[in-house]
Amino acid sequence: MENLKLPTMRVTSAVLNAVIHELRVLLGERVSTSASALANRSRDASYHKPRPPDAVCLPHSTAEVAEIVKICAAHSTPIIPFGTGTGVEGNAIALHGGICIDLSEMKDVLAVNLSDLDCTVQAGVTRKQLNVHLRDTGLFFPIDPGADASIGGMASTRASGTNAVRYGTMLENVLGLSVVLPDGGIIKTSRRARKSSAGYDLTRLFVGSEGTLGVITEVTLKLYGVPAAISAAVVSFTDIEGAVNAVIRTIQLGVPVARMELLDEVQMEAVNRYSDLDYPVQPTLFMEFHGTEAGVKEQAELVGDIVSEFGGGGFQWATEAEARSKLWQARHDAYYAAQAMSPGRKGWPTDVCVPISRLAECIIETKKDLRESFLTAPILGHVGDGNFHVVFLINPEDTEEVAEAERLNERLVMRALALDGTCTGEHGVGLGKMKYLLAEHGDAVTLMRAIKRTIDPQNIMNPGKVVNS
Amino acid sequence: MENLKLPTMRVTSAVLNAVIHELRVLLGERVSTSASALANRSRDASYHKPRPPDAVCLPHSTAEVAEIVKICAAHSTPIIPFGTGTGVEGNAIALHGGICIDLSEMKDVLAVNLSDLDCTVQAGVTRKQLNVHLRDTGLFFPIDPGADASIGGMASTRASGTNAVRYGTMLENVLGLSVVLPDGGIIKTSRRARKSSAGYDLTRLFVGSEGTLGVITEVTLKLYGVPAAISAAVVSFTDIEGAVNAVIRTIQLGVPVARMELLDEVQMEAVNRYSDLDYPVQPTLFMEFHGTEAGVKEQAELVGDIVSEFGGGGFQWATEAEARSKLWQARHDAYYAAQAMSPGRKGWPTDVCVPISRLAECIIETKKDLRESFLTAPILGHVGDGNFHVVFLINPEDTEEVAEAERLNERLVMRALALDGTCTGEHGVGLGKMKYLLAEHGDAVTLMRAIKRTIDPQNIMNPGKVVNS
Repeated sequence: MENLKLPTMRVTSAVLNAVIHELRVLLGERVSTSASALANRSRDASYHKPRPPDAVCLPHSTAEVAEIVKICAAHSTPIIPFGTGTGVEGNAIALHGGICIDLSEMKDVLAVNLSDLDCTVQAGVTRKQLNVHLRDTGLFFPIDPGADASIGGMASTRASGTNAVRYGTMLENVLGLSVVLPDGGIIKTSRRARKSSAGYDLTRLFVGSEGTLGVITEVTLKLYGVPAAISAAVVSFTDIEGAVNAVIRTIQLGVPVARMELLDEVQMEAVNRYSDLDYPVQPTLFMEFHGTEAGVKEQAELVGDIVSEFGGGGFQWATEAEARSKLWQARHDAYYAAQAMSPGRKGWPTDVCVPISRLAECIIETKKDLRESFLTAPILGHVGDGNFHVVFLINPEDTEEVAEAERLNERLVMRALALDGTCTGEHGVGLGKMKYLLAEHGDAVTLMRAIKRTIDPQNIMNPGKVVNS
Repeated sequence: MENLKLPTMRVTSAVLNAVIHELRVLLGERVSTSASALANRSRDASYHKPRPPDAVCLPHSTAEVAEIVKICAAHSTPIIPFGTGTGVEGNAIALHGGICIDLSEMKDVLAVNLSDLDCTVQAGVTRKQLNVHLRDTGLFFPIDPGADASIGGMASTRASGTNAVRYGTMLENVLGLSVVLPDGGIIKTSRRARKSSAGYDLTRLFVGSEGTLGVITEVTLKLYGVPAAISAAVVSFTDIEGAVNAVIRTIQLGVPVARMELLDEVQMEAVNRYSDLDYPVQPTLFMEFHGTEAGVKEQAELVGDIVSEFGGGGFQWATEAEARSKLWQARHDAYYAAQAMSPGRKGWPTDVCVPISRLAECIIETKKDLRESFLTAPILGHVGDGNFHVVFLINPEDTEEVAEAERLNERLVMRALALDGTCTGEHGVGLGKMKYLLAEHGDAVTLMRAIKRTIDPQNIMNPGKVVNS
């Protein structure tokens, strides 16, 4: 297979006007070209340079999305699916302009099957909205990337987060999708059976494709019973190696821990300042255990022993919902706390994931890099998966700071790849990681490009992202 | 996308002779055209009509597989990857002749990473061989489709089996693959990190593709710690509805049961006769619990209560390895026991999978069909997943019996599809389920065919299977 170069988008304003006219006939007021509407969909939660689309559509159904796509396809006009704008790799920035399909008004929970532990939602439903909807059912949807992201966006970026170590990522938790293809055709990727060997796995092809192969409009998800007992703990370590090794041992022993989050001492100082807390300014693990009363007690005892062995101590436990929520608030605010450390600067978050046996090495070398740099950059992460984040604090206008973040990010990615890891564990490729895809996947990128070209021959779906170098 | 018709293979004997000559230069004695070698790779474990390949190659490495594929590709000659021949839907039958790549001599365990709970094996390693290799490590590979299948074959068919209800299927347990593409190029689909958002999910594209997109030559797998405690039980029910409902309740309550197998009264009679046992001839559940001592006790108590509630009783427990192994032998021999019920007849195994809330309905209607038929057909299955098997006992030469099995099979598949299920939970499409793919997936089949054509434009990879109607 040759290394296919995808066409670049150039849509004239005459074409755009025609497209927008047709979209208005279809959707009326639900097409907007106002400056604020465009600005709101021009950026994500990252440092990536904003770029507005030319119009925003707010469809209410899969059928409406299909009509929008047909109009755009007929005029070779770029389409950018947009969820909550909480991505961090520029995944939904309208690099070549075009039509933003904002799915935020597709917010219906279409079905909850209590007996089957699954549900089907429109793509714009957010994870918090879903869990509020499920509140009285005894079930919940565990995947938690931090932000209140849309389920469609989470599927698109193969998101995970704090409790993937127990419940898996969107890869394992999406049972099926409705997708509008780049020609406006609608497919369902799967029936609702828990497993199937019937043909190619289209569900997983679209999960993680970041809107470059079609628009995800409905998602069927696995749900889980709310655990009978939940217990959370915070524990401090004298050094980061001890904290990481405690995590490694816990995973190796097969303890079904639900969350295992590391915050380094830089991040802990930020958290203390931001939330007026007084945790020791040391590498710290935030942990959570789910199970029966007896099971949670057993897990906590086991992990307590492991933690002591690796120099951890000063356990702070929380079992009641309110106390747990307070404890986790500190972790959830970590990104904002980091940004607040350096007023006027923005966070440039990056993530890598390595086999857990290489995690201590990867974090320690990264911290060495960071100590030698003039930038401040806390480390935090879902270390139970081998996944961690660095948040470079930069002034995006300062070319020296940007260059330093780029240098450190590249060293981090190359370090992770050298350790048999990946350039992104959960943020996706978007714009920011495109340049590393070849280093990670080699010739497999050619195959990815061939698939992209087959499904989207006009290259109208979120052009310039993922495989589109 | 148009509904692409793939080219049909016609290779002249002159071309075949040239291919075989080139293969002999490459592999010497490891190319065979003897009648017995061809016959051994002409069939699988099913009723499907055998069809021999024209030659069999026995490569030892990914590089050798790539050379074989290049030779075949240069002459547009079909390639059929072959593992242990234990498939049941004709997945590896050489429908159009061609070159069988038998991976059974690629039996090296390439790496076991104890700390990361993973391993990398050549595709010909069987699941039992792997577990023997792991014996002293405290780790094991759980997926158990019954037969001692090769890991490559299991990945190719997205296999699962008795304990998928706890450990998942090959979809969730393959971390990465080495694949030889139809042009002889070699790719790795993934690094060894536990999760990644870096590009399209090629791993899952090849898992379940049944050799139609390339040859899987190496597989990286998740491993698990051997549970501290294991307990198994057999329990009988007065009716099949009670047995199925006990399973449904167990799953809904989130009990992390490791195995939950149903054998109907027809199958139990067969098992008793075959293995000289005296289980009640009633619908029966075989169950297994994995965990800590306390966890297993807790699970067993919970399930004991549920079973009583649904009319189950006469628990027979086994905790020691030997007693458990004897108990499970009856389950593992079920297919042979079924065949032995009707000497001279062959088993025609089929499987479907439905959402668990529809399982009782699906099994009860199927049993009604079977009672009204002149064929004998026991039911058994991995009901914790909503997945069950029917084994029609037929004389393949008797057109009336074959026609009746086809009629019942079609009714079963259509029933499963009507209940939002799939035409195959774990056997794959092969030849036997091709005609149902469109009924299950609709327009998504067109997309599958487009992917097939992009990756294998000559249609040389296992032609006539899966999407190739």
